Amino acid sequence: MAAQESPSPKYRRIADALKRAVAAGEFGPGDRLPGENELMARHGVARMTARQALGVLTSEGLAEARKGAGVFVRDFQPIRRRSVPRLAREQWGEGRSVWAADVPDRELVVDEVSVGEEPVADAVAARLDLPPGDAVIVRRRRFVLDGKPVLLSTSYLPAGLVANSAITRPDTGPGGVYARLAELGAAPARFREEVRSRMPAPEEADRLRLPAGTPVILISRTAVTADGRIVEVNEMILDSSAYVLEYDVDA
Amino acid sequence: MAAQESPSPKYRRIADALKRAVAAGEFGPGDRLPGENELMARHGVARMTARQALGVLTSEGLAEARKGAGVFVRDFQPIRRRSVPRLAREQWGEGRSVWAADVPDRELVVDEVSVGEEPVADAVAARLDLPPGDAVIVRRRRFVLDGKPVLLSTSYLPAGLVANSAITRPDTGPGGVYARLAELGAAPARFREEVRSRMPAPEEADRLRLPAGTPVILISRTAVTADGRIVEVNEMILDSSAYVLEYDVDA
Repeated sequence: MAAQESPSPKYRRIADALKRAVAAGEFGPGDRLPGENELMARHGVARMTARQALGVLTSEGLAEARKGAGVFVRDFQPIRRRSVPRLAREQWGEGRSVWAADVPDRELVVDEVSVGEEPVADAVAARLDLPPGDAVIVRRRRFVLDGKPVLLSTSYLPAGLVANSAITRPDTGPGGVYARLAELGAAPARFREEVRSRMPAPEEADRLRLPAGTPVILISRTAVTADGRIVEVNEMILDSSAYVLEYDVDA
Repeated sequence: MAAQESPSPKYRRIADALKRAVAAGEFGPGDRLPGENELMARHGVARMTARQALGVLTSEGLAEARKGAGVFVRDFQPIRRRSVPRLAREQWGEGRSVWAADVPDRELVVDEVSVGEEPVADAVAARLDLPPGDAVIVRRRRFVLDGKPVLLSTSYLPAGLVANSAITRPDTGPGGVYARLAELGAAPARFREEVRSRMPAPEEADRLRLPAGTPVILISRTAVTADGRIVEVNEMILDSSAYVLEYDVDA
């Protein structure tokens, strides 16, 4: 019964097969996918079903229809950023990077990283519950996927808490910052993300190599311990064409 | 050394000072900010630098340029859309609108609403787990805050489930669609929201009265019952300058 409870419709199964073929590299970026006629013949389905299957891939941004030519694998596949599993303690608690959860089959690489101690700026001080001017450890990183910069991340942590940990080093070790915070007795228990969007400032467009007319998504995340202490503020700037953010909310 | 590595450019420091002044209430909503000449004199910078500093505030949606008159603090305060409390059953289960949670002290008004039955489009059929062409009830609404359209919402529900309920009427009654779904034995138990951003299509810019250079945020929400049935897909298009989306995630 439970196994039966959501039988997927035919077009969905065909779409899933196409997605697997794309993920396996059978069809690469820019390649033409099988057309409606071919899908009809191969799967013994009606034209409408074949069209729907292809429609799933285009509506999810994995492929694009070119008039009269067919449906082609998009050169750049959006990163599906699933907030619940990526921030779960099972991820970073077992030594995996929260970033690795975003692109299970591809490699999200940090190509620029700098870490330093700075006096905290007013806006961040307020969010970290720190007195103005207090020292923070600032970690600035740029993430690149398939050779394209997709994300700028600036993380602020109270220096009083983390100054003697690997958090002050470019490589923070297995599980990253959150695993190190846990070792310091300051494991995040919950996160709040604030999401906005706007056009990029010139230097942001430059660092993310954004085509004209591409907005950025801003995510401002605070990490809070079980006893309510704010231990990190992370300001992220994302190439909006590269990301879908996914959030699950209970009723 | 590390702390020195990215000293902010002059225009950025001036912009930050202006932002602090706005945050401190030195300039209120609708107030004129210092002009280029004043910034040049006060900070000893070139016109281009002063212009860039003001450009930061307008591009971030904090201020707006009015031709020939100067740059003014926007008198539009972003809507803080807190997903967890707004979608909680305590909200709609007790007869309140989920939309009311967004603007506790202001009035978010529906100024356009249309409801009808349509054959489901392919992309939505896939998400609702419906066979292609099945009938859905489609609710299209525009929401206005302080006289400005801020959100377009298109909600799709299986006609087979809701055809005989108040969901087919413009006014769905206390607690709205989710309260009516609960009465039909199809109460949402969880929601998934997918968030993207892009520049608006011309008709979207028109309906939301977006100034040039303002992206839209897209939220695609599915409502799922406790036994895994998808009972609603809601496609929302938001004026990005009007919204901050807030999500809470447990570690």
